[in-house]
Amino acid sequence: MKIIKSVKQMSLISKKLRGSRKTIGFILTMGYLHEGHISLIRKARKENNIVVVSIYVNPAQFGPKEDFKKYPRNIKMDTTLCEKCGVDIIFAPSDKDMYPQGYVTYINVEKLSEGLCGTKRPGHFKGVTTVVSKLFNIVKPSAAYFGQKDAQQALIINKMAQDLNMGIKIKIMPTVREPGGLAMSSRNAYLSVDEKKDALVLYKALQKAKSMIESREYRAKNIVGEMRRLIKTKKSIRIDYIEIVSANDLKPVDKIKRKVLIALAVFTGKTRLIDNMIVRV
Amino acid sequence: MKIIKSVKQMSLISKKLRGSRKTIGFILTMGYLHEGHISLIRKARKENNIVVVSIYVNPAQFGPKEDFKKYPRNIKMDTTLCEKCGVDIIFAPSDKDMYPQGYVTYINVEKLSEGLCGTKRPGHFKGVTTVVSKLFNIVKPSAAYFGQKDAQQALIINKMAQDLNMGIKIKIMPTVREPGGLAMSSRNAYLSVDEKKDALVLYKALQKAKSMIESREYRAKNIVGEMRRLIKTKKSIRIDYIEIVSANDLKPVDKIKRKVLIALAVFTGKTRLIDNMIVRV
Repeated sequence: MKIIKSVKQMSLISKKLRGSRKTIGFILTMGYLHEGHISLIRKARKENNIVVVSIYVNPAQFGPKEDFKKYPRNIKMDTTLCEKCGVDIIFAPSDKDMYPQGYVTYINVEKLSEGLCGTKRPGHFKGVTTVVSKLFNIVKPSAAYFGQKDAQQALIINKMAQDLNMGIKIKIMPTVREPGGLAMSSRNAYLSVDEKKDALVLYKALQKAKSMIESREYRAKNIVGEMRRLIKTKKSIRIDYIEIVSANDLKPVDKIKRKVLIALAVFTGKTRLIDNMIVRV
Repeated sequence: MKIIKSVKQMSLISKKLRGSRKTIGFILTMGYLHEGHISLIRKARKENNIVVVSIYVNPAQFGPKEDFKKYPRNIKMDTTLCEKCGVDIIFAPSDKDMYPQGYVTYINVEKLSEGLCGTKRPGHFKGVTTVVSKLFNIVKPSAAYFGQKDAQQALIINKMAQDLNMGIKIKIMPTVREPGGLAMSSRNAYLSVDEKKDALVLYKALQKAKSMIESREYRAKNIVGEMRRLIKTKKSIRIDYIEIVSANDLKPVDKIKRKVLIALAVFTGKTRLIDNMIVRV
């Protein structure tokens, strides 16, 4: 396994690989890898000649008051995990190489970036699409793998790849959960034992929503109301949003029909957690 | 020579070409080709295995009151010219294929897009960078050729390619002028005989500016003043802007130093013409 830190070097390697007709499977991460990432790596390993994992905590997608500085990092642990999973190349560029002085180019996926987390974290998705597009150009993947846990991000990146004719397959893999149901996230490392226990209510609320829909409760308001009630039983948790939207265009729905995304974000202490579930009627 | 209209087909062809290690030289045009375009094609022909010319009048770069509908088109004449110049592929996609329903992704090169024509044509450069990025992804060029006549556009595209790590050489070729000095432009087709005669003053004003600087007049205000005076002698011409900016970052300068761009835009009737000159001190 190689660890590449230079953008130039990575570009040359991927150009050579694609020139010799190798397929490249790409997993874009901010490091501090967990089972969610591993599931993406395993899938990519099965489907491609070469697997590249990028590890880069992207400053452009953090708001000024967010956790960029304290975001958990452990390149040693990440390296060991990648090695074990048969990764060929870790690409871990520096901020200076990714955003040199005078950097000014940004990509925006309008509409899809505006609701849900986009409302709560202005500029976040612009930072995500910009770095993803840069990393795509540097690594030149045939396919890139993302987790359903970041549902809005996955939809936005897929739309960007289509709209800009990137010719890269975007593959969205299921959320991996801890035994109690908590969605895997590098940010779970912030949680105390008690906070982690309380956070189990998020998955319970999503499951409750699903079972309500299965019992033919189709009024979004009632479902969100019940989810709110459940989550509010945990004192350590403050709700950021709970919304039910169309799974294709993220527009809010009143009546559940076809395929909806039930999405939520909460704070427990200073830690922001998100989770979601797709339900088909 | 092939004429390709489908985005999908063009993507497949260029993927195959790059896979077999052919270099692709790319000239992006809105058609109605003139000697300026031809000079780019000739250069690309010398430097690449394959030459692709795109002909696409991009709706996203026209303002609502601009000349999208009446922009001159003549695919037959363009085809003959391309054939003569040894072009391998004309790529002429449809609006529906380029901007399918629900299209929402845009690229913006901040700062550089804000001054000069960017102030006068809001959204114009966002439309340009977006379509250029799409065309780059579809055609996968090794090098792309642009004219210095659109100085701000050239700078913006070069910056985008660098910032987003596109790995494409951006080559800027000198402005080609008609015998009297008028910069070649498809929009010259709009001009009456008299308007065309009056428009010669633009190049004269630029030459005047250059000779003033050569005579050590370094005060931008005085130079712009003299250009204004000269152009105003032509009643058919209305000045949109005349500016002297740093050639690297397009920031206005008071004192001429190093490398400046002297840029102007005027209206003659409803026709907007631009021209510019780079002067080194």
